[in-house]
Amino acid sequence: MPMLQDPSVKYQRFAPINLPQRTWPSKVLDKTPRWLSTDLRDGNQSLPDPMSVEEKKEYFHRLIDIGFKEIEVAFPAASQPDFDFTRYAIEHAPADVSIQVLSPCREELIARTVESLRGAKRATIHIYLATSACFREVVFGMTKEEALAKAVKCTELVRKLTKDDPSQQGTDWDFEFSPETFSDTDLDYAIEVCEAVTNAWNPSVEKPIILNLPATVEMATPNVYADQIEYFSTHVANRDKICISLHPHNDRGCAVAAAELGQMAGADRIEGCLFGNGERTGNVDLVTLALNLYTQGVSPKLDFSDINSVVQIVEKCNKIPVHQRAPYGGSLVVCAFSGSHQDAIKKGFNLYSKEAAAGKKPVWKLPYLPLDPEDIGRTYEAIIRVNSQSGKGGSAWVILRNLELDLPRGLQVAFSKVVQDKAEVKGQELTNNELCDLFKQEYYIDYEDEETNYPFKLVDYSISTPEKGLKQVDAELEVDGKVVKISGKGNGQLSAFNEAIRTHLNSDIEVKHYHEHSLGLDSKSRAATYIEVTLNGGKVSRWGVGIHADVSQASFLSLISILNGLKGNGEI
Amino acid sequence: MPMLQDPSVKYQRFAPINLPQRTWPSKVLDKTPRWLSTDLRDGNQSLPDPMSVEEKKEYFHRLIDIGFKEIEVAFPAASQPDFDFTRYAIEHAPADVSIQVLSPCREELIARTVESLRGAKRATIHIYLATSACFREVVFGMTKEEALAKAVKCTELVRKLTKDDPSQQGTDWDFEFSPETFSDTDLDYAIEVCEAVTNAWNPSVEKPIILNLPATVEMATPNVYADQIEYFSTHVANRDKICISLHPHNDRGCAVAAAELGQMAGADRIEGCLFGNGERTGNVDLVTLALNLYTQGVSPKLDFSDINSVVQIVEKCNKIPVHQRAPYGGSLVVCAFSGSHQDAIKKGFNLYSKEAAAGKKPVWKLPYLPLDPEDIGRTYEAIIRVNSQSGKGGSAWVILRNLELDLPRGLQVAFSKVVQDKAEVKGQELTNNELCDLFKQEYYIDYEDEETNYPFKLVDYSISTPEKGLKQVDAELEVDGKVVKISGKGNGQLSAFNEAIRTHLNSDIEVKHYHEHSLGLDSKSRAATYIEVTLNGGKVSRWGVGIHADVSQASFLSLISILNGLKGNGEI
Repeated sequence: MPMLQDPSVKYQRFAPINLPQRTWPSKVLDKTPRWLSTDLRDGNQSLPDPMSVEEKKEYFHRLIDIGFKEIEVAFPAASQPDFDFTRYAIEHAPADVSIQVLSPCREELIARTVESLRGAKRATIHIYLATSACFREVVFGMTKEEALAKAVKCTELVRKLTKDDPSQQGTDWDFEFSPETFSDTDLDYAIEVCEAVTNAWNPSVEKPIILNLPATVEMATPNVYADQIEYFSTHVANRDKICISLHPHNDRGCAVAAAELGQMAGADRIEGCLFGNGERTGNVDLVTLALNLYTQGVSPKLDFSDINSVVQIVEKCNKIPVHQRAPYGGSLVVCAFSGSHQDAIKKGFNLYSKEAAAGKKPVWKLPYLPLDPEDIGRTYEAIIRVNSQSGKGGSAWVILRNLELDLPRGLQVAFSKVVQDKAEVKGQELTNNELCDLFKQEYYIDYEDEETNYPFKLVDYSISTPEKGLKQVDAELEVDGKVVKISGKGNGQLSAFNEAIRTHLNSDIEVKHYHEHSLGLDSKSRAATYIEVTLNGGKVSRWGVGIHADVSQASFLSLISILNGLKGNGEI
Repeated sequence: MPMLQDPSVKYQRFAPINLPQRTWPSKVLDKTPRWLSTDLRDGNQSLPDPMSVEEKKEYFHRLIDIGFKEIEVAFPAASQPDFDFTRYAIEHAPADVSIQVLSPCREELIARTVESLRGAKRATIHIYLATSACFREVVFGMTKEEALAKAVKCTELVRKLTKDDPSQQGTDWDFEFSPETFSDTDLDYAIEVCEAVTNAWNPSVEKPIILNLPATVEMATPNVYADQIEYFSTHVANRDKICISLHPHNDRGCAVAAAELGQMAGADRIEGCLFGNGERTGNVDLVTLALNLYTQGVSPKLDFSDINSVVQIVEKCNKIPVHQRAPYGGSLVVCAFSGSHQDAIKKGFNLYSKEAAAGKKPVWKLPYLPLDPEDIGRTYEAIIRVNSQSGKGGSAWVILRNLELDLPRGLQVAFSKVVQDKAEVKGQELTNNELCDLFKQEYYIDYEDEETNYPFKLVDYSISTPEKGLKQVDAELEVDGKVVKISGKGNGQLSAFNEAIRTHLNSDIEVKHYHEHSLGLDSKSRAATYIEVTLNGGKVSRWGVGIHADVSQASFLSLISILNGLKGNGEI
């Protein structure tokens, strides 16, 4: 069907429930949910190239290090490798981590599923049965009553083989039931099934049953899912003996929203994967959920302080890249290319650093950066990147962070034009190294420790005071390889040196701006000077930069820097 | 700060507004918004490698083909290439497409911004000024009054240079104002600024002003943004002369939700990019928003019927891949690897196809597939893919779609074990070709048109009726290159042939199941037969497949297929 035709015959709008008294929209997210990682099960099953056993092990240990206390590891009745991995997991899990395994509601699979967990310290059996009309009718050919009876029967079997079995008392058993396709199931029927299962399991307030309410497929806007969760949470019997778990998929791009609004609506537990792996569009992304909490001042109790290494292991094991724009972890997410963004971030950082240095504990409130990149192990330096769309702020920032040069505003403007031209010619982002090299070339910066071969060089100079209030500079330059002696007088050293240059070049060169700051904090610190001159009756202007341990020499070098620039542009 | 420490000092929870009488949670999305693509502006500015001019042109024309009527193309006062591209866009835009350009609220940039649009048929000037306290104070150092005055002054200037300028009457002018960082701005102040700007522009009901309320940075859960939009929409004066536009960024992974809930809360227009390009985590993804509407029976009035080519151009121009799990467009999104998913999809497809073939107009309601892949130009064949986690349904589907063989259930189970072993050894997904080859090898399928070199071959046969109710088969086999004559009797052709085999091999081989169907619909159609046998007292069982234009020969070939298989496994 052509896309632009009316789709209203083929597709029906999802009918939301009527819940005018809903309370969730006035709630805020203020507590940490129980987290379940299903990376190794739901995530792994949907990979074009599933993890090798070694990869699964590495991922498993990393999940534990991050702080997950509930990890779904396999579908052990489905294959020997899944069974074997479950054995590995229970042998290597810390005492406070529950190993969860999955089985469909099929009695013939449950014994082996339970067997895979024998000897575990903590374990969760998770069984599921699709309850939507579509699945019952099209896929299984079951009536409502048959499906309910099947769920109860399987629950009873799990109970008999686990917490009611005298030989299984060494394990702390949890039980999870999922009415799969919950979000497309008649709510009262979902509650009826869940209540029957709850009765069959017989949970307690201390040891609640986990009822997982999946958005197996995302069916509607996330507020509809939240309404479903609130309805379920407020209508199901024995609510205090139930842990409501959510398992949102991302078909409509709203899994994170569904998980968040669903928690506001009463859910206690979230199932998902790191960076949202899973069937089709993936399960909800636990990294985003955790760090969304964190930036609101709530500890997620998951450790993503080294997010780059998390990205690394996820990409290695899933063989699917984390997208450049994935919240928090994406490589482009703590970057700004736009000039105005870069400028605002720079100002925000300066204020924040100043307050922090003054011993205050400033609240993080930075333009364009909801999270301090350092909190997830990313560096400030990576934040600002420069392409042809960038303005002066970004380049200036890169120069400051890399060369310690705090460029005056006029020089920022002048250099940003150079950068823009270069970036347009390159047609690509400039790296920090390219940007620094471009700066050094453009301003002929003569670091003492670098080999340079510029047309003008300062060889030596002496400063005298022929009379009170007057300075004389006698200097030796190398100009195109030849030594030249120049001399000039003025009311200061720089004006004397400039006078010497004017005389030598027969030019009206005139110093307009002068800035200076020290580089580094120790006794070996050097000075950086920035000079802007005009010449040719003001028609030409140019900035120069000089760096030297001696501040006089630094200022002379900034003038030499200008001479080299003018020469390079054919202006002298 | 280590992640697991309490973040409540450094990060403050975003304070939502109090809006207990909100109405949006009871609304449904039922109309198509105005769409603005900012791919070429906000999207392009945030690319590590911005688009070349040629790429921008190609992208621009594609946006028009998709059906966008409002396209933001550049920040023309920022650079000559942006200015030049604006000129290109107005020269090539159809009469019903408005070309939009951006400028900050800076009077010195506005004249050139307007100039870039001279001669356009439809054009929109978009100016922005950040209004949040953080930006006003930290970035600009402006009071509330100063910021408001600046916004009004710039609006007046735009008005003077556009719709009030007699020389500009050939253009149909629109005006957009963005209180940048709206979602972090005191709402009453945002309304105050917007009302002042509205008055300065003097819009009409027919020609409303566009007030864009960006989530420049996503600050909180998407319901909070919806509350802000509803508050704004219900409190701003002259609402009927205002088009409320949303520009959500995706920092918390909820931009799609924010755009959808925001529309329910009163917004009329959405700004975003294809597949969510833009600063940091990107702008809201317009593909997802459009197809979310479509699957609810509402035409998005954007044409994504060839989504693969949209992915292609986006990836080519942005040089950022569309993620494999991006809703609708991701390569893994219309796939199922899990056996139970594959099985359910297969059943759903069968029912849907049957209903469609019967001339009904069935509603699309397929397990795990919210959208018919054909509607976006993706093929059914790509849906089911097979890895070691897959069950019988997936392989059976691939064999059906590629070899037209509709395997009986018992054979599906037998073959799925072969597939699982193979996939585990490979450690990767099996391609459809690999799966078909595996099937042919495993069952020694002897297509007439393929060269095979199997140990058992059927050379010739004749069938006679020695007495009523009894069949005799005399056949010539080639066994390991030698011709062997065999003969047997039975109450049917197959049992007679089987008897001949039993005698020849001195085996108790016995036919347990027999299935047959025709292949293809025309007169050249062939028959496929599937036989399961047991032998060695029932200890060994095996399936065979025979394909031939003659149905008798097909059934004999299925037994030959079994002999080859048994020989291959060393069982005879």
